[in-house]
Amino acid sequence: MFDSKVYIQRRNRLKEQIKSGLIIFLGNEESPMNYSANPYHFRQDSTFLYFFGLDFPSLAAVIDVDEERDIVFGNDVGIEDIIWMGFQPSIKERAMQAGIEETMPLDKLEETVKTAVQKGKKVHFLPPYRPETVIKIGQLMNHPDAGKDHSSEDLIKAVVEQRSVKIKEEVEEMEKALSVTHETYSVAMRMTKPGIYEREIAGKMEGIVLSHGYTIAFPTILTINGQILHNHYHGNILKEGQLLVIDSGAESSLHYASDITRTIPAGGKFSPKQKEIYEIVLNAQGSSIDAIKPGTKFRDIHLQVARIIADGMKELGLMKGDMDEALEAGAHALFFPHGLGHQIGLDVHDMENLGENYVGYDDKTKRSDKFGFAYLRFARELQPGFVMTVEPGIYFIPALIDKWKGENKFTQFINYEKIEEYRDFGGIRIEDDVLVTESGHRVLGMPIPKTIEDVEEITGKE
Amino acid sequence: MFDSKVYIQRRNRLKEQIKSGLIIFLGNEESPMNYSANPYHFRQDSTFLYFFGLDFPSLAAVIDVDEERDIVFGNDVGIEDIIWMGFQPSIKERAMQAGIEETMPLDKLEETVKTAVQKGKKVHFLPPYRPETVIKIGQLMNHPDAGKDHSSEDLIKAVVEQRSVKIKEEVEEMEKALSVTHETYSVAMRMTKPGIYEREIAGKMEGIVLSHGYTIAFPTILTINGQILHNHYHGNILKEGQLLVIDSGAESSLHYASDITRTIPAGGKFSPKQKEIYEIVLNAQGSSIDAIKPGTKFRDIHLQVARIIADGMKELGLMKGDMDEALEAGAHALFFPHGLGHQIGLDVHDMENLGENYVGYDDKTKRSDKFGFAYLRFARELQPGFVMTVEPGIYFIPALIDKWKGENKFTQFINYEKIEEYRDFGGIRIEDDVLVTESGHRVLGMPIPKTIEDVEEITGKE
Repeated sequence: MFDSKVYIQRRNRLKEQIKSGLIIFLGNEESPMNYSANPYHFRQDSTFLYFFGLDFPSLAAVIDVDEERDIVFGNDVGIEDIIWMGFQPSIKERAMQAGIEETMPLDKLEETVKTAVQKGKKVHFLPPYRPETVIKIGQLMNHPDAGKDHSSEDLIKAVVEQRSVKIKEEVEEMEKALSVTHETYSVAMRMTKPGIYEREIAGKMEGIVLSHGYTIAFPTILTINGQILHNHYHGNILKEGQLLVIDSGAESSLHYASDITRTIPAGGKFSPKQKEIYEIVLNAQGSSIDAIKPGTKFRDIHLQVARIIADGMKELGLMKGDMDEALEAGAHALFFPHGLGHQIGLDVHDMENLGENYVGYDDKTKRSDKFGFAYLRFARELQPGFVMTVEPGIYFIPALIDKWKGENKFTQFINYEKIEEYRDFGGIRIEDDVLVTESGHRVLGMPIPKTIEDVEEITGKE
Repeated sequence: MFDSKVYIQRRNRLKEQIKSGLIIFLGNEESPMNYSANPYHFRQDSTFLYFFGLDFPSLAAVIDVDEERDIVFGNDVGIEDIIWMGFQPSIKERAMQAGIEETMPLDKLEETVKTAVQKGKKVHFLPPYRPETVIKIGQLMNHPDAGKDHSSEDLIKAVVEQRSVKIKEEVEEMEKALSVTHETYSVAMRMTKPGIYEREIAGKMEGIVLSHGYTIAFPTILTINGQILHNHYHGNILKEGQLLVIDSGAESSLHYASDITRTIPAGGKFSPKQKEIYEIVLNAQGSSIDAIKPGTKFRDIHLQVARIIADGMKELGLMKGDMDEALEAGAHALFFPHGLGHQIGLDVHDMENLGENYVGYDDKTKRSDKFGFAYLRFARELQPGFVMTVEPGIYFIPALIDKWKGENKFTQFINYEKIEEYRDFGGIRIEDDVLVTESGHRVLGMPIPKTIEDVEEITGKE
């Protein structure tokens, strides 16, 4: 945990933001795999961690804004549990670490909420994303759909405002996660050679993460089919000439995420064709990092990247016509169908459970529904303390190519004949995590090879 | 998946067992970690795997016993999903692999169940253990507590009867899991030496499992505090003189579990005191494996182990008096407070979600509530095809010792003064997985070192 002052300050700021009412926070439960007593590793809710820091299951907390009371709800373990689980500090001792003196057993939560409702207080809670929390909110609010229908927009906005800006201690945690991620990539790049299974590299990487007492922040993407964006299959054997896309990241012990992508030639050397595309992506990524500074809209940087990619595609004869018009129409999204990046923090897609429109957009920056912009998770103005992923990519997605071609879509901008030469190309993506500073930006973590020379230098050199 | 005949046979047998009505099976959903789109690795429900073999989320199935219809419910993916996830076979193609021709979209499930209810059919379902399944059962049965209150005892008993007896293909899967587990123990034992963190060994083991495309069957226990039975903390550094207990197992790609425990001297050599206790546990484990054969009650083997442990404790001066009386009273449970073992199969504690009393007990063998017997998960007569873990242990649990001592419990059998010399001893457990055969038993998997000589031979020899 951070120092208790950090949590006290966050909760006090929240009281100022919300002004009145009762705020409920439900911690996560253990998640059963195949029966109740066989759970996945425990992951606390990120907002619960943010305001209370308490990293164990079956907790709840309430902030009574009017009465300035912060209460943690949880049950102490009995002697039976101590026999099986060893000594456990009391809820009271643990809550003190978050700067909270008032604790109650869990069964007092319902009473506390119902008393507040009777007194006419507004009750605030965040939209639940786990089914057990849906059930609990339903019970507390006496309405099974309360979680879906009655979460508090004021609370969402207040939490997004606070969690978006990372303090020094949070950035340090992210750099700890990145340090382990750096180690995993060093090993993975050295292991990358023809004849190895994807899963051998993925397993090695995750093993390193676990050896540090960390977990993976999200399911690892490690694939010779980088053009399949949501792809967690690791059963292929690497072959000469293929490109291996690895998108992965460790999560620190305080649960801050890292998120790095590298694209590695399976055979140790990029082909000339691969080099051409790789250089476009690398250039796009470098330019967008350069553009990061307070006050700049992330969407504008996304557009700048789209422009670099479209121009590069035109130079290779894959696009044609007027690139201003092509970008306006969204034709580049055939090759770059996702957004430039997203906020990262306690979640790899930070606060995604609160709704991307609250996290990535605001009154000044509204969401577009154009293909390629619709997937832009984050668009609004950058502020000092934001940490962003910067992850442009170029993909040749046969299903998407065939769909657009079949619809005669953007034939004035896209050279479908030429694309056939790239049908089996796969995809390339390069990603780093970047802190917005007062004066500009800082790429977090130790550099992981990304120029063609540096990648080729390390690949396969076990 | 196994051959479709396997699944057809199991479902036909189930129809014979249940005789009439409609049986609902709900597959598992993705389990969110910190937001919906960031799930843990997917784990299908084991009974769903057993009867349908289909290993992906958001499925349901129904067996209409009266009309002899087997239906799989699921939604095909659209073109959007194919763009992001790559090509996916249709539900129909997948269901065919389980020998099922009739499929319907998911939203037809509710109608199917409600029609059956209207026709006066009995609706059978298993008790849910995941909150999303609790919600779904509640909706299907029009009653939020249906999952808790109205699951089908007939169905539970029928499933337990079938799943308890493993066919050849299932045993082969368990041996595949054991082969990977063997590899993890070979590496772990070599790594065990003073100065290494528990988490380094645990991470290495899990990394190996993942490298094979397998997962861990349950959260790894790897601890210098083996006396804390439910302990998943891996933050200690190994020191000379300590005992490292490792209880872990891989799960095969078809989701069959393995479950092995070894106790390893951190410094490479057991002390004379450790040897004495280790030999008692090893002897108890060997004797109980020898005793495994069809028709023998597992409780009797548990009692035999309890006897060996009690006699051993008496020889060391830790127990005293008449050991028959001590066993009858349950005094040995101070050192051996858990059961000898449990069934293992698609779940590491096989079918634990169906209720231990159905799985481990029957009309001929009722559960005892004595301390030390209460924790015996499995007691009933063994049958050919059962796979059992055999895992005796001796522990010195300070919290339990102090509790009993404070209560002056069993002072006629326990030498509390002598126990003080063992207060920091920790615990020793040895576990293997054993198949009950027609003529006796077979220990599954390649042998993993367990005699004192063999363990010392490999420990620390990286």
